[in-house]
Amino acid sequence: MKKIFKGDIVYTKSPAMFEINEDSYLIVENGEVKEICRYIDSIPSDCEYLDYTGKLIIPGFVDIHLHSSQFFNIGLGMDKELIPWLNTYTFSEEAKFIDLEYANIAYSKFVSDLIKKGTTSSVIYASIHKESTMLLMDLLEEANLRAYVGKVNMDRNTIDELCENTDESIAQTEEIILSSKSDRVKPIITPRFVPSCSTTLMKGLSKLAIKYNVPVQSHLSENTNEVEWVKELHPDIENYASVYNKFGLFGQTKTVMAHCIYTSDDEIELMKKNGVFAAHCALSNFNLSSGIMPVRKYLDYGVDVGLGSDISGGNTLSIPQSIVSTIQASKIKWLESDKELYPLSFSEVFYMATKGGGKFFGKVGSLERGYKADLLVIDDSNLLDINKFGVLERLQKYIYSGNENNIIAVYVGANSVNH
Amino acid sequence: MKKIFKGDIVYTKSPAMFEINEDSYLIVENGEVKEICRYIDSIPSDCEYLDYTGKLIIPGFVDIHLHSSQFFNIGLGMDKELIPWLNTYTFSEEAKFIDLEYANIAYSKFVSDLIKKGTTSSVIYASIHKESTMLLMDLLEEANLRAYVGKVNMDRNTIDELCENTDESIAQTEEIILSSKSDRVKPIITPRFVPSCSTTLMKGLSKLAIKYNVPVQSHLSENTNEVEWVKELHPDIENYASVYNKFGLFGQTKTVMAHCIYTSDDEIELMKKNGVFAAHCALSNFNLSSGIMPVRKYLDYGVDVGLGSDISGGNTLSIPQSIVSTIQASKIKWLESDKELYPLSFSEVFYMATKGGGKFFGKVGSLERGYKADLLVIDDSNLLDINKFGVLERLQKYIYSGNENNIIAVYVGANSVNH
Repeated sequence: MKKIFKGDIVYTKSPAMFEINEDSYLIVENGEVKEICRYIDSIPSDCEYLDYTGKLIIPGFVDIHLHSSQFFNIGLGMDKELIPWLNTYTFSEEAKFIDLEYANIAYSKFVSDLIKKGTTSSVIYASIHKESTMLLMDLLEEANLRAYVGKVNMDRNTIDELCENTDESIAQTEEIILSSKSDRVKPIITPRFVPSCSTTLMKGLSKLAIKYNVPVQSHLSENTNEVEWVKELHPDIENYASVYNKFGLFGQTKTVMAHCIYTSDDEIELMKKNGVFAAHCALSNFNLSSGIMPVRKYLDYGVDVGLGSDISGGNTLSIPQSIVSTIQASKIKWLESDKELYPLSFSEVFYMATKGGGKFFGKVGSLERGYKADLLVIDDSNLLDINKFGVLERLQKYIYSGNENNIIAVYVGANSVNH
Repeated sequence: MKKIFKGDIVYTKSPAMFEINEDSYLIVENGEVKEICRYIDSIPSDCEYLDYTGKLIIPGFVDIHLHSSQFFNIGLGMDKELIPWLNTYTFSEEAKFIDLEYANIAYSKFVSDLIKKGTTSSVIYASIHKESTMLLMDLLEEANLRAYVGKVNMDRNTIDELCENTDESIAQTEEIILSSKSDRVKPIITPRFVPSCSTTLMKGLSKLAIKYNVPVQSHLSENTNEVEWVKELHPDIENYASVYNKFGLFGQTKTVMAHCIYTSDDEIELMKKNGVFAAHCALSNFNLSSGIMPVRKYLDYGVDVGLGSDISGGNTLSIPQSIVSTIQASKIKWLESDKELYPLSFSEVFYMATKGGGKFFGKVGSLERGYKADLLVIDDSNLLDINKFGVLERLQKYIYSGNENNIIAVYVGANSVNH
């Protein structure tokens, strides 16, 4: 099946610059980009033609760290740091997902908001509950989105309702892996973070990851108190990253670690060596007074970095708002580092929000040949005026001052997503 | 004329806490709040009743620093610091306002966006052009908003099109003052900032301010290069604030200074002594890599602080987005200051965004007895779910994750603003 999209097409092939194709044709075959042409002779008769002349066509956004079971908590409890925030607001909300009916209401709203915000691929923490995690996977599949979804594993240091029996936690994770059949929505092993997981649990999860070649997600060095706590829990292991690495959850299969603020050079080097992705969550790191990730340093080391909305530490699923905050945070980091860590540019952060995070999924997040045709159509007419703006200026205006109302169509694999 | 508004009424009388009146009646006479009652016997027949049951009723937002002539530049040029940003993007846009037709298009859109975003009172930099400044004042008056509007004064260190003759600059400013008759939209003396104003100009403007008792606005210590530049221009004066003070533009009449990032303790003390307001512009300070204002320190000194969107250094007129960024910035400042400057709370920043900045206008920004009935009605139903949220949680959700679509009505002095 062939489709041709026409519009002002813009994406990033590399972090350094945008690829701009004004008033051009994006040709898609079997859900993948075939080519972009400035002119075509005629529209073949076997081909669906989608004319978005004058609109921006960009890759769908990629969110590589978020907590779906905290969706209803968005905007609440922003006066606390990580550990008290978890204990006061978050764990009690997550506990509700034992109730499938509650999960159905919450996850339906969550999936609908993901689409509204233009996020076509995401890496998701669900909750500890097997059934509601599988329900979320079904909802994402039906909605035609791409996702990795993780049943959360935790067997220590949490409230009773969320504290699992170690063997059951592993067994239920395996059940989800075995029952999963989708190409678009897949399971991911999700030890919450070191303080929530016994060594037995971590080792067991690593075995599963390797046995079934399933990826892994977790949190790393978000808050100084958390880092201290990990040190107390594992005084014999040299640093936080090495705890995961020792127990086989740090790149033994494809892995993403959220936050990565208080990491040593050794830890960043280990991430590079093991091919571990970093999910940068600027909004959450602001809201929970966590700090600012030195993203420039990770890029200099060659670590793959994508963006995470990290709801509900982050206060919105909007990746454009994460892009703005990421650039802003990098500017403050530049000042804090005596102008050593140079601010991130607009193209660098747009790349993280699309192809950078998309790499975790494969050929996702770009509009180069062979990439999945995951697209957003942006009507930015309300942001324009009597001045003449180029495509790149229009994209900047949309990201910096537009909102979800500007997204008029969402496609995944060139299929329209109900929006 | 008496009006009664019913809804979930919330505002800040002091920075420390919210006043919450769930499902209550706000009684207004002659555009001012008379009282808030939990119950009333009946609606008097001479009284207009506005039933917003289940909606939030909050004070209109107050923006005490923004550049209206940069409205079309929103979202552009965010890769530069202050001085190059001014020279590359800003001055050339402002120069267009010599054309009244251009000004009419731009300012009409600007006023309409102010209303959409729920900003009922603002302190505005226009451009150097007398006619378009007066046009803006007319548009704001017609729209039923409150504002101080300043014709910008600059006679050095700018592009030719914006560099005024000193005497003409003063004369035109006086013409605007003399022609101004509105109670809601008033002139404000607006020396752009020290580098743009000769001492003759500053002295002349001070004379006008005192002669007609007109307030003053300017910029103070936004960027380290700017501070250095002021030192070079006025090597004999001890600091930036003292330059304004020496030339009579620092509290001799009511004064607001934007940014105030790199101020010494002496300068903050002088602000307190002279009753000078600070306009905190968190979004702009992030975007232009300026730094973070130590707001807590100003509050400890007892300086009045309000919020400024500072478009187009700031990337939106949305004061809710400024509230979120202000809280976020204060959390980073807390970390930067080794946890000495405690983060700003939600109520403290909501206060700044309403009553704190509103104080510059008089009894504006609160819903206490005698305050102007400047109100927003917020329909937050799309942000709610099956959980039961209190009024304060709903307000937080709206500020952190809502947008302009949630504002369903705007009133200034209890009169509906076309929106």
